[in-house]
Amino acid sequence: MQYPDPIAKLIDSYMKLPGIGSKTATRLAFFTIDMNKEDVETFARSLTAAKNDLHYCSICGNITDEDPCAICKDPSRDHKTILVVEQPKDVMSIDRSGDYHGLYHVLHGVLSPIDGRGPEDLNISSLLQRLKDDAAVGEVIVATNATPEGEATAQYLARLIKPAGIKVTRLAHGLAVGSDIEYADQMTLLKAVEGRTEL
Amino acid sequence: MQYPDPIAKLIDSYMKLPGIGSKTATRLAFFTIDMNKEDVETFARSLTAAKNDLHYCSICGNITDEDPCAICKDPSRDHKTILVVEQPKDVMSIDRSGDYHGLYHVLHGVLSPIDGRGPEDLNISSLLQRLKDDAAVGEVIVATNATPEGEATAQYLARLIKPAGIKVTRLAHGLAVGSDIEYADQMTLLKAVEGRTEL
Repeated sequence: MQYPDPIAKLIDSYMKLPGIGSKTATRLAFFTIDMNKEDVETFARSLTAAKNDLHYCSICGNITDEDPCAICKDPSRDHKTILVVEQPKDVMSIDRSGDYHGLYHVLHGVLSPIDGRGPEDLNISSLLQRLKDDAAVGEVIVATNATPEGEATAQYLARLIKPAGIKVTRLAHGLAVGSDIEYADQMTLLKAVEGRTEL
Repeated sequence: MQYPDPIAKLIDSYMKLPGIGSKTATRLAFFTIDMNKEDVETFARSLTAAKNDLHYCSICGNITDEDPCAICKDPSRDHKTILVVEQPKDVMSIDRSGDYHGLYHVLHGVLSPIDGRGPEDLNISSLLQRLKDDAAVGEVIVATNATPEGEATAQYLARLIKPAGIKVTRLAHGLAVGSDIEYADQMTLLKAVEGRTEL
């Protein structure tokens, strides 16, 4: 016996999401059937709306429903600093911390020769164009992840941008706040010692 | 800064699903934006279809897109046996095992005085009606879960059905196939010893 067609199709759709296997998809599908009708319709509408109404900001590459995005056109932000991240969701993570008020630039990935991803596959040329067009920018903060690929991308960007006389910085590496030294990995401890600050 | 409206709404919708918190919902929403358009549209359509096209079979209470359901109207199945389960998804689990070829009846829950769920809240009266209408039924297998509520519901059904001269059985309790005695809980071991079979 097979599931009725509408359930089977819904299970298939749920299984396309990351981290959701057939058991979870089945559970979600049966849950959906018991949800109230309005919630299901809102869900269906938000799916298509998210796909159709969102695009990348032509300036910074962040995901937005207007162009330029809310951050790029906000006059109250510090337009002299650009923070470079790998993915749109990183913008939100950093902006939530509440301490950074400059602009962003989203690369949509990192350099990864092993996956065949070179500079031309990333949103790098538009960053360089931005720096060329706007002489006011004084600092580029490279906030790629602390992975080998993230580091390599940061080094690559620094080499491109520094000659233009713009300061290029990198997020600090060290112990996460609230973490135990006992459980920190060796690389993190090495970076924490290297980057020690005076009290 | 807030997420653009379409993302925020999609995150809210994902968060309505069981076991999905705000971090996972955000990850799923960003994943959805990068999915291909056709898959997203299929997903949206299957959501509304699953909600609109499915209902409960008027005979057995299973979820179906036709009435009576495919199982109830299948003449090749053994119409003399009815297996009673708590939820529609249990039907599929048992049917997949491939050994049972009778009919089903879905209670949509178990008796649970603590939650105020009595016999009238379950799909019990239609089961009794079914047994009354169809004199051919010779056995009712109660396959409610091996929880206190499932046990109580099984006992309750047995007391209702047995007087009509119909055999009422319960799924065997014991060690799961492939499991270690070392890790089995006491109740399971007790049931396994009680229900021992001769070799």
